[in-house]
Amino acid sequence: MGAALALGARGQGRTAPNPNVGCVIVKDGRVIGRGWTQPGGRPHAEAMALEQAGAESRGATLYVTLEPCAHRSPRGPACSDLIVAAGVARVVAAAEDPDPRTAGSGFARLRDAGVEVVSGVREAEAVASYAGFITRQRLGRPFVTLKLATSLDGRIALADGSSRWITGDAARAHVHLERSRREAILVGRGTWDADAPRLDVRLEGLEERGPVRVVLSSKPSMPSEVEARTSFRAGYEDSGSLDFARDGRDWIRLENPDQITTLPCDYLFVEGGAETAAAFLRADLVDRLLLYRAAILIGAGKSAIGDIGLSDLSDAHGRWTLADARMLGSDRFESYLRQR
Amino acid sequence: MGAALALGARGQGRTAPNPNVGCVIVKDGRVIGRGWTQPGGRPHAEAMALEQAGAESRGATLYVTLEPCAHRSPRGPACSDLIVAAGVARVVAAAEDPDPRTAGSGFARLRDAGVEVVSGVREAEAVASYAGFITRQRLGRPFVTLKLATSLDGRIALADGSSRWITGDAARAHVHLERSRREAILVGRGTWDADAPRLDVRLEGLEERGPVRVVLSSKPSMPSEVEARTSFRAGYEDSGSLDFARDGRDWIRLENPDQITTLPCDYLFVEGGAETAAAFLRADLVDRLLLYRAAILIGAGKSAIGDIGLSDLSDAHGRWTLADARMLGSDRFESYLRQR
Repeated sequence: MGAALALGARGQGRTAPNPNVGCVIVKDGRVIGRGWTQPGGRPHAEAMALEQAGAESRGATLYVTLEPCAHRSPRGPACSDLIVAAGVARVVAAAEDPDPRTAGSGFARLRDAGVEVVSGVREAEAVASYAGFITRQRLGRPFVTLKLATSLDGRIALADGSSRWITGDAARAHVHLERSRREAILVGRGTWDADAPRLDVRLEGLEERGPVRVVLSSKPSMPSEVEARTSFRAGYEDSGSLDFARDGRDWIRLENPDQITTLPCDYLFVEGGAETAAAFLRADLVDRLLLYRAAILIGAGKSAIGDIGLSDLSDAHGRWTLADARMLGSDRFESYLRQR
Repeated sequence: MGAALALGARGQGRTAPNPNVGCVIVKDGRVIGRGWTQPGGRPHAEAMALEQAGAESRGATLYVTLEPCAHRSPRGPACSDLIVAAGVARVVAAAEDPDPRTAGSGFARLRDAGVEVVSGVREAEAVASYAGFITRQRLGRPFVTLKLATSLDGRIALADGSSRWITGDAARAHVHLERSRREAILVGRGTWDADAPRLDVRLEGLEERGPVRVVLSSKPSMPSEVEARTSFRAGYEDSGSLDFARDGRDWIRLENPDQITTLPCDYLFVEGGAETAAAFLRADLVDRLLLYRAAILIGAGKSAIGDIGLSDLSDAHGRWTLADARMLGSDRFESYLRQR
């Protein structure tokens, strides 16, 4: 299952509207197939692994991070049917699929056909690995990651706005890696106007993985290429993904954070500034917080987060749980998850 | 030497104007004497350990965190003389004494009397353990620790000033332990007027270790008991320590950070608020930074540090080195040392 989880993570931010699942097929102690959901959501992980294993699948054990789907679609057959047809003897899954079109019926179809099914293996890790899909299913919106790069005293820039550089090379590379795992990246209109940020992925081999840029702006006037993309939903429905927008590097404009429900993506990266961060936090729309903290003091300067509407300190506690932490050069990286 | 360092740390903040030294005497693989500088600076660590070891000191090895003193004083004999008289065979020291009255002459006196001397063992740790004494010798002022308790976004209070509580019980107990190791604790006039802080040590068994309170205020008008203490220097010279002020729990007033040179103490704790922190940082008078950081977001609120006069981000780098870090409950504790 560990190997399947690692494979599933490869698709993070590239498989919407499908979950980024991983799959490993084992027979006689040997791996005979490996698969992960491909960009755009097809083929599914199980289909890819079964294709690789071929006729050897008969009598094998299939490990998968999510219940195999039970619904037939114009884009491909149901994975539970493929597994039965391949003669797999045993399926070990991490979690049941919350999609109402499957929701247990994948397991039922397997069991009805005589396949042994075990579920719940490393479930929490699996759910975290396709958090975007789960958030979409449960809350009808993408999983939102808010990134902050600050000094020890919580500043994101000097008073004059200069912020190059607070964190070092390793931290900045880590931000680019995180960007490459999201379909969309959002900044506020203030950041756009001040910095005209590229928001791309500057990592060798991942240059093509830049997310679609989204700007939060209540002002209707935007650069023309942004306006041109207000029809993005139609584009998504044609292509089944945000790739149509990715090519042109256009901006999508949202008027307020609640409109992220209209974004056809599972993972959204929010990169600033302070008012945009505050708007998302005030609406309780942040699921994960990434902190990059340099060992410097700035003093008077720009704060990381504006008014989030907090009036009582006791309300601030118990919302964020440390999920990951490490040093990146002399900077400290931490990620926190919103407790829901 | 590790045991001697641990013993020496016991005196931190209580031995000025003498260094907080630790000493262990070993004979035939057995510890026969342990000593550390006593409150007020006397007896010295070596004298205490030699007293404990008695006649057994003959032929023994003495481990000490600082070169034994060579100068006779009305308050007691020179330790190097005591060591020679006791017949100690070998002295292992961590560092040479920078006090010009000793500065190598302690070692010379030992060697002249036929005692074997080794120096430089765990020197960096030893210098850190009596950093107050070293700072006094080199810079003519106390070693300054600045404490900040913040949210993840660097806030120390809500906009209305409420700050109870940002950090949890374990972090607050740690602050009280740190206070108990300083002779003096300083806050700005704003904090004093707003919070009337007790700044005492609320830890069982350490209630008597509260440091003398110092207020930074350019306003000449202060509560009458503060004014009464402007003659503290005379009191110090009578008693050889700040204990005279400790008893009455009076405040000492300083007009600006540079006046810490007049404070007869080796360890000063600075606790806020933002303008006081900034004044010390602007004057480059902070040697150690203690950060207590709660896993909460505050957003709009009071920032940790005011204007420190930074105009170029590159000047902010390379000044602070992480020295210690751990979790205290759900709060993160970090200490940083100023690179000089």
